[in-house]
Amino acid sequence: VKTISWDPISAEKQGYKHFMLKEIFEQPARIIDTLRGRVSVERGEVNLPELALDEDAVKAIDKIVFVACGTSYFAAQVGRYMIEQHARIPVEVELASEFRYRDPIVSANTVVIGVSQSGETADTLAALREARTLGARTLCVCNVIESTIARESDGVLYTHAGPEIGVASTKAFTTQLAAMGMMAICLGRLRGTLPSGEARKLIEALREVPAEMEVMLRDMAPYEAIARQFSKAHSFLYLGRGNQFPIAAEGALKLKEISYIHAEGYAAGEMKHGPIALIDKQLPVVVLCPRNRVYEKTASNLEEVRARGGRIIAIGDEGDERLEQFADVVIRLPQAAEFVQPLISVVAVQLIAYHIADFKGTDVDQPRNLAKSVTVE
Amino acid sequence: VKTISWDPISAEKQGYKHFMLKEIFEQPARIIDTLRGRVSVERGEVNLPELALDEDAVKAIDKIVFVACGTSYFAAQVGRYMIEQHARIPVEVELASEFRYRDPIVSANTVVIGVSQSGETADTLAALREARTLGARTLCVCNVIESTIARESDGVLYTHAGPEIGVASTKAFTTQLAAMGMMAICLGRLRGTLPSGEARKLIEALREVPAEMEVMLRDMAPYEAIARQFSKAHSFLYLGRGNQFPIAAEGALKLKEISYIHAEGYAAGEMKHGPIALIDKQLPVVVLCPRNRVYEKTASNLEEVRARGGRIIAIGDEGDERLEQFADVVIRLPQAAEFVQPLISVVAVQLIAYHIADFKGTDVDQPRNLAKSVTVE
Repeated sequence: VKTISWDPISAEKQGYKHFMLKEIFEQPARIIDTLRGRVSVERGEVNLPELALDEDAVKAIDKIVFVACGTSYFAAQVGRYMIEQHARIPVEVELASEFRYRDPIVSANTVVIGVSQSGETADTLAALREARTLGARTLCVCNVIESTIARESDGVLYTHAGPEIGVASTKAFTTQLAAMGMMAICLGRLRGTLPSGEARKLIEALREVPAEMEVMLRDMAPYEAIARQFSKAHSFLYLGRGNQFPIAAEGALKLKEISYIHAEGYAAGEMKHGPIALIDKQLPVVVLCPRNRVYEKTASNLEEVRARGGRIIAIGDEGDERLEQFADVVIRLPQAAEFVQPLISVVAVQLIAYHIADFKGTDVDQPRNLAKSVTVE
Repeated sequence: VKTISWDPISAEKQGYKHFMLKEIFEQPARIIDTLRGRVSVERGEVNLPELALDEDAVKAIDKIVFVACGTSYFAAQVGRYMIEQHARIPVEVELASEFRYRDPIVSANTVVIGVSQSGETADTLAALREARTLGARTLCVCNVIESTIARESDGVLYTHAGPEIGVASTKAFTTQLAAMGMMAICLGRLRGTLPSGEARKLIEALREVPAEMEVMLRDMAPYEAIARQFSKAHSFLYLGRGNQFPIAAEGALKLKEISYIHAEGYAAGEMKHGPIALIDKQLPVVVLCPRNRVYEKTASNLEEVRARGGRIIAIGDEGDERLEQFADVVIRLPQAAEFVQPLISVVAVQLIAYHIADFKGTDVDQPRNLAKSVTVE
């Protein structure tokens, strides 16, 4: 008789060493799930009846305020770019824990949107309740059906990330970005600021994301090299501009969470106003610089880091030879529309954090001191 | 014959070891200079004709957008609290380098305010030019008379900090905060949201700041102890909530700039969403927790840091025994109105950075890689 031991945890990991890695690899499929049934390339339309907003309601919006914590806060920052650019509605993004104690100024035409994977984040819930008391309409972007935040909001846009087990959020973040993209297109169409031809292009860009992510997931060699080379560093700096700035912040948060290395995300344009003093041969600097409207500015910041002896991990477009010249390691991104670039580049920063933590041997799925959802203040 | 050598640089330092220290000690006098002739406690009025805004213009404002870089950006964040609370005008604060590439949404009723010590900061100047092109009214808070930003703005509120030589800004920051406070009172009175009795109390609070700062400047012993104990740390975390959150960020920036230690400012409520994973016996955590509306929440964050073995430098009110119990070092603040608490507590974080850098022996007044005013992008 041969006994076969069966470990339900390993089984659920489907051969991946950690849930986090499994969840990183699941992202293309979960983006497809999140877009399914909601977008039509042919008609150039996004249908989100769950937002419960018609044309008149959208035209009356004076501003949108996102309230969120942690990774969801950075997703909202990407959402801000998408919505301001395509729907031309002013958007603010607030830390939920700050918003609720601020005497926020909102009107009956303000839409306050909570972003929370679990739908149970205490500060986000409290911020939404405060917003409702002040007369605002509330919406949410959530991953857990019938969660408290979902039940209490006037409209819910569910992400279809599936259950996320790793404490460090990955697929919840990218499906939130897909949700933000759909919301921007939907609001832009209803507001009349986004022509249908443009909408069609943006939808096409969202639909291409899963295939572009698959390209990102093919080759782990650069991340393994980064882990070997940089895992002893005490600190990291992550730099980005425009819609890559929140990705820099998210990359730094991931590294903090699972590798316990102090990492900070900074707007690349702010580097000269302080952080540049930190740069020496010990400090790895991750620079997010795909070709976009701020590419030249970001690339010139990268050269300044280099000129001061910093070690650079550049995340940029395939075929960009300028990066090879100035960076120690280059991670190549498949070409993608600027609108969706954050969904692609974030995969790189997720994998950098994962491989460094795995190399260090920390508990990737259950990092010290952290809880999956923060249901106390 | 005895030759007396005379060093003009030392003479200008007036006996202080560094310009930065001299400028920290000058702050009470420069606040007095900045308030002089502009505030009247008796009438409960602040007169700022230089803003060129009458009652009708102020009532028509739909929002204020501050654009700034570095230290001035954090001053604007404190200004946001002051103006939103007392004038009830929605305020956004944007990094100038991000604002200008964002397709910002502003109207003819939006007031865009640049904040810049030198009045020559390239990104801030470009952001203001962009705002004017989009039809907004522009103002600025500047320290240098007839600087480019001052000349190009529709109104200028000068700080009277005098020439600032140290690259790390100190007296420019606190005089900017005094300017923000006066602006909040002035706008609140013109907007009709601030009763004159309340205005009188706020003016009184501003007038008491110099004396409270003098109390802060009496005793250097705690800072010298901090320098001995913590100057070998690789990283620092600075935590604060509400109007102390920008002070946490400014404290971290000061330490980065002059000691080259990686320090990051975080909203204390966000700690559980990531940074708490960093906490161990090696990481000093500076917690700003004077008694204010968020005191209880901040103090409980401080206890969580302690429970995880973190080393704590607490900056809080004199006589707060709870802090003694949980912190390794306590810096005591004289009691002050919440409105002006940031002007007092920032002196503590300036002195922490200064004493650590001096102990390490870095070039305090001319830190590596940094320029006094960043006149290129």
